[in-house]
Amino acid sequence: MADSSLVIGFDLGGTKMHAAAVDTHGHVIHSERCKTLAADGADAVIDRMIGLCTRILHELGPRAADVRALCVGVPGGVDDERGIVDTAPNLGWSQVPLVERLSGALNLRVFLDNDVRVAVVGEHAYGVGKGTRTMVGIFVGTGIGGGIIVGHHTHHGGRGVAGEIGHMTLMPHGPRCSCGKRGCVEALASKTAMLREVNKLIKQGWTSRVPKLMRKHGSEVLTSSVIERALDGDDEVMVKVMRDAQYYLGLLAGNLVNALDPEVIVIGGGIAERLGERFVGRIRDHAYKHFLVQRDREKVRIVPTELKDLGAPLGAAFLARERLQGRLDSAPGPRHGTASWPGPSA
Amino acid sequence: MADSSLVIGFDLGGTKMHAAAVDTHGHVIHSERCKTLAADGADAVIDRMIGLCTRILHELGPRAADVRALCVGVPGGVDDERGIVDTAPNLGWSQVPLVERLSGALNLRVFLDNDVRVAVVGEHAYGVGKGTRTMVGIFVGTGIGGGIIVGHHTHHGGRGVAGEIGHMTLMPHGPRCSCGKRGCVEALASKTAMLREVNKLIKQGWTSRVPKLMRKHGSEVLTSSVIERALDGDDEVMVKVMRDAQYYLGLLAGNLVNALDPEVIVIGGGIAERLGERFVGRIRDHAYKHFLVQRDREKVRIVPTELKDLGAPLGAAFLARERLQGRLDSAPGPRHGTASWPGPSA
Repeated sequence: MADSSLVIGFDLGGTKMHAAAVDTHGHVIHSERCKTLAADGADAVIDRMIGLCTRILHELGPRAADVRALCVGVPGGVDDERGIVDTAPNLGWSQVPLVERLSGALNLRVFLDNDVRVAVVGEHAYGVGKGTRTMVGIFVGTGIGGGIIVGHHTHHGGRGVAGEIGHMTLMPHGPRCSCGKRGCVEALASKTAMLREVNKLIKQGWTSRVPKLMRKHGSEVLTSSVIERALDGDDEVMVKVMRDAQYYLGLLAGNLVNALDPEVIVIGGGIAERLGERFVGRIRDHAYKHFLVQRDREKVRIVPTELKDLGAPLGAAFLARERLQGRLDSAPGPRHGTASWPGPSA
Repeated sequence: MADSSLVIGFDLGGTKMHAAAVDTHGHVIHSERCKTLAADGADAVIDRMIGLCTRILHELGPRAADVRALCVGVPGGVDDERGIVDTAPNLGWSQVPLVERLSGALNLRVFLDNDVRVAVVGEHAYGVGKGTRTMVGIFVGTGIGGGIIVGHHTHHGGRGVAGEIGHMTLMPHGPRCSCGKRGCVEALASKTAMLREVNKLIKQGWTSRVPKLMRKHGSEVLTSSVIERALDGDDEVMVKVMRDAQYYLGLLAGNLVNALDPEVIVIGGGIAERLGERFVGRIRDHAYKHFLVQRDREKVRIVPTELKDLGAPLGAAFLARERLQGRLDSAPGPRHGTASWPGPSA
């Protein structure tokens, strides 16, 4: 008999949230998204999360009864054992008991993981990394996050905090990072670092349309869309800043290849989603130059995300199934039975 | 019935070779060592390797019949499938069919691996890393090598070349490395890099006893013993150069922790064997400062080698057993039966 079960993969971002009901084949049956509006506080955001899931369950109709679990990718550190979001700086969250709130309202098993890790799992399960044993994800946004797959599984590490590749030092006396250290790749190649460099060059007398484009977009941060427009217009500052960032990301990729020799490195995040090969091409070129072992270097694929912003929901859905399976196997009990949808009043 | 089988773990170094017959518990039954004298050429070195194994088998007496396999840790890249040493720069070897030569002469199954990887396996199986899921080895000598254990097993990577942590870039415009790139940690913190810095400071007018100590030891390279004596004499140049190297090694360790979050980092190689905590203490201090996640940082143990120069023979022995087992399981056949010792004339 075919397995008709569904799970919900949830991507909780700093600016928007995006959830999808996913079947056993990784097909999205229904998805919803809305703004996060983190400034409203954790309670309001969690209410919106519950509302989004409720809409999905409503749209699923009778198939809502097939939904077995929910996994949320959170932009920060989570304690999945205790069901708590430790810290999520972009949301302003600290020690938020997210699992209790969501499972209470939705009557579903709820799991948590980091948003980037979840997106890497998505690319591994359903995207560019399908079938690979070793894979690394580098996600470039306002920060730089990552995820590492070894032996077909997410590598969590001894304290459960592996994958923080954005905070590998590339330049010991380089610019200060948001983490307090100097010369992390995040301080050299994130959108935050790019904006700092754009402003520095403008102060040095270079001309750039970037500030005007940002005002036009009503944005105080450097968005992927502003970057694209500036590059389309051959903005000399944006071109230089982008090339520098690609160089550092190539170094990071090269370092990770020398250490881990993965079969694939997926480059994700807003810029990669928007620019694809135009962003990744130079990263790959620089990375290849930094491989110690040049033999078969093209066997290490360095490629843009395939799933784009569906990576995180699909990865979260994959993890929901995996964990549900693991926990059902190891600790069967009344809470682990077939979930049924009791309606939002539960 | 107790398993009385033995394997030989062989550490082929650039200056000396060291082999040990090891039982199922990792106890050394008999070991032998001699000089490598690589300048004599591959044939002469291989003859010496055969001679060393022959002496061990002779000393084992009737137990020689219990020896099942031999695994050699080689200072370079190996192709274990084809049984060939690809390149071993310290030996001046390229494309040497070592397995054929040794198995023909000794009538034993012979396996190859990289010497540092093998030493990391030794520390994982029998030393500081016993029982850990994730472990990293950083071996500091004339170069810097490494090995990575994930999920209790050596991580080889897609092309089989993982663990080249000495060639992770730490300073994009730093000193030139032997590999041709700039600012690899090997170009900043190996004994070769330390000697370059010692000479640079002396040229700048600093005074140091290091050149005199090197002449006294008849050495053109900076040995661990010269380093120790210079530090014992509070040689200002050696103290500064050592502190810089410890800083870069701490950065490397911190980077690897941010990426992989291992339970233990073992620091090996000649300096670590000789100086132990005196070498590793400052590396640990710098590394801890560079952890992104400070929570439970002391759970990441950063420690000197426990097995010292027995790590490689013990690790090679462990791998010999593991591979013998794997191959026996997957491809039984006449060559895989109980080995018997036919005498040196074979």
